[in-house]
Amino acid sequence: MKLATYKDGSRDGQLVVVSRDLATAHYATGIAERLQQALDDWNFISPQLQDLYDTLNHGKARHAFPFDPARCMAPLPRAYQWADGSAYINHVELVRAARKSEVPPTFYTDPLMYQGGSDDFLGPCDDVVVPSEDFGIDFEAEITVVTGDVRMGATPDEALEGVRLMMLANDVSLRNLIPDELAKGFGFFQSKPATAFSPVAVTLDELGEAWQGGRVHLTLQSTWNGRRVGLCDAGPEMTFHFGQLIAHICKTRNVRAGSIVGSGTVSNKSVEVNGKPEWPKGYSCIAEKRAIETILDGKPSTEFMKYGDTIRIEMKGQNGESLFGAIEQEIVPLAS
Amino acid sequence: MKLATYKDGSRDGQLVVVSRDLATAHYATGIAERLQQALDDWNFISPQLQDLYDTLNHGKARHAFPFDPARCMAPLPRAYQWADGSAYINHVELVRAARKSEVPPTFYTDPLMYQGGSDDFLGPCDDVVVPSEDFGIDFEAEITVVTGDVRMGATPDEALEGVRLMMLANDVSLRNLIPDELAKGFGFFQSKPATAFSPVAVTLDELGEAWQGGRVHLTLQSTWNGRRVGLCDAGPEMTFHFGQLIAHICKTRNVRAGSIVGSGTVSNKSVEVNGKPEWPKGYSCIAEKRAIETILDGKPSTEFMKYGDTIRIEMKGQNGESLFGAIEQEIVPLAS
Repeated sequence: MKLATYKDGSRDGQLVVVSRDLATAHYATGIAERLQQALDDWNFISPQLQDLYDTLNHGKARHAFPFDPARCMAPLPRAYQWADGSAYINHVELVRAARKSEVPPTFYTDPLMYQGGSDDFLGPCDDVVVPSEDFGIDFEAEITVVTGDVRMGATPDEALEGVRLMMLANDVSLRNLIPDELAKGFGFFQSKPATAFSPVAVTLDELGEAWQGGRVHLTLQSTWNGRRVGLCDAGPEMTFHFGQLIAHICKTRNVRAGSIVGSGTVSNKSVEVNGKPEWPKGYSCIAEKRAIETILDGKPSTEFMKYGDTIRIEMKGQNGESLFGAIEQEIVPLAS
Repeated sequence: MKLATYKDGSRDGQLVVVSRDLATAHYATGIAERLQQALDDWNFISPQLQDLYDTLNHGKARHAFPFDPARCMAPLPRAYQWADGSAYINHVELVRAARKSEVPPTFYTDPLMYQGGSDDFLGPCDDVVVPSEDFGIDFEAEITVVTGDVRMGATPDEALEGVRLMMLANDVSLRNLIPDELAKGFGFFQSKPATAFSPVAVTLDELGEAWQGGRVHLTLQSTWNGRRVGLCDAGPEMTFHFGQLIAHICKTRNVRAGSIVGSGTVSNKSVEVNGKPEWPKGYSCIAEKRAIETILDGKPSTEFMKYGDTIRIEMKGQNGESLFGAIEQEIVPLAS
C-alpha cells in the first residue's frame, strides 16, 4: 500500500491512504490519524489501512479525492531517528579519487553512517531554504526505509524483517561547510540541513520482484533545472543492503519503530569507452559530478545549486509508473 | 515546575507533575498525556501544568501519590532531536593534551556538536545494556535543555528564549569504539548508545539565581560504585552557553519543539598545588580521568566500567535539595 501525510496546519499532519496509481487518496481517519501511530502498532493498524487501500484501488472508497503531492508533508513530518548510510561505495571511491586519497579496506565491510536531524523534515514540494548560496548547495537522491522495532544485536536478516516502508529522499547537503566540519572530527552537522521525502511511503510488496536481497532493483531519476542528470541503477551496486545498514545501528542499541534509514547517494561505476571512463547513468548528487570532472580534467566545472534552481527526484516501477511520486523542490533564500 | 514521565507500558508513558521536593506526584491527565504534547503547545498547556504544580506543592492536589524515580521513563522517552555539544573546552583540552595534539583555535569560537540517536532513551534507573565490556564503557554527566521552536538563523539570545526545560543526562559512551569510528570521518555512531535522563525535567525558574547567562551555576555530582568522583562546577567554565549551542544548530535549519540539546561532559580546570596540577573537583567521565593520568604518569591507570558497576548523577540546589532527582544506573550485559 501507499501512505502519505496531508498538511492540516498541525505538526504531524493527517495520514492518508493513496491509490496505487497515485490518482486518488482517502483520509485514514478512524484507523490512524498519523503515520507514527500506525508504525507504533503496525500489526494491528496496517491490515486496516490495507483494506482501505484495496477499496480505494477498486474505486469504491466513498470519500476518495484527487491526490495532490503539493499538499503533502513528508510521510513522517518528524521522526525519532534519521540515520543515513553511504551504501554505494562507488560514490566514496569517486570522491576520494578526486582528492587522491585511498578508500580504507574496512569501508567495504563496515558501513559509513551518520545520524541526521529528524525534527523538521520537508514535504516533497516544499522549498529548500538555505541562508547563503556560498554554502555549496547540493541535492542527494537516495532510497530510504522506515523500520519497526529492531532489537540490539539483530543480524542483517533479522533487521531486514523490520523494514515497514520505503521512501525516496533528497538529503540536501551544503558541500562548502563539510571540509571544516569534518576536520572538527564530530561528523556532519550544519552541512546537513532539513531532508525532504517523497509524497508517499510504500510497503515492500509494491516493489514486486524489484525488491531483492534488501535492495531495490530499479532506476532513480534526478532532474536538475529540467535536465535529466541521473538515471542511476539503485540495485546491484548497493554495497550494503538495508538489513546490513539497520544491523549496523543495532550493534550497540535498539532501533525503535519509525526510524528512517537511508542508502546514501545512489551511484554507479563507470564503463570504459575507447579506453576512457564514462558515466552514462549520470549522477545523483552534484558533488559526484564534480569528483568525476576533477578525475578527468583536474578540476570541477559544474557549479553547485543557486537560488531558483529546481530538483526533481523520482523512481519508476517496472511498468513505467511512478512508485513514490516525485520530490520537486526549489532552492530559496532565508526570508529576513 | 517539575515534570516526569511514568512507565505505563506504552512508548511515551504518562506525564506527571512532581512536587518541588520530589516527594509527591500527580498525573497530568486532563491537561496533557505526554510531555511532547505539552512542548508542542507550550503556551496553552504549561500554565495549566503550573496550576497543578502549585496545588501539589501546597499539599492540596486530591490524587497525589508518593513520587518514585524507579517508575520513571526519561521525561521525553523518545525525542525528535538529541544534539549534544562539547561546551566545556577544558575537557577537549585534557583529552587532546593526553594524546599530545593541539586544540584548534576555532574550537574556542565554534562549538563542537554531534547528532545523537533519540528513538530509545533510558529512564533514570534503567540498566545500561552493553553487548561487551571490551567496548570501553564510560558515563558522561551532562546538563541538557529541551527547546521549543527556534527559527533558522536565530541569534544566541533568541535561541536562549527557546529553552523550555532542563534535565541531567548520562551520555553513555563506548570509548574503545571511538577511534575507529572517528577515523571513518562521519563522527560518532555505534560509540554512542542510548542516553539516560534524570527523573524530572524542570523549568528554568526552579534554578533561581543559579541560572545566569545561559549557564547553570551549580555543582554536578558523579558517584561511581558508591564513590564520589565528580563535584564539577557547571557554571563559569562552560565555554559556550545553551543559547550559543542552540544557535549553532539554527545556522542552517529550524529547531523544532522537543529538541534536546546537551552541554557535553562538565569539566573544570586544574589548580596548581606545589607547582603541580591537581583536579580537586574530580571528573564527569572516566575518559577525562584517564587523560589526566596520561598527562601526569604517561599512561592511564583507571579502567572503564565493568558489568555490575553503578553510576549516580545528581545536582543539588543552593539549599542542598536535589533539583532533578538522581540518575542511578547499573551496567549489564545484553541478554542472549
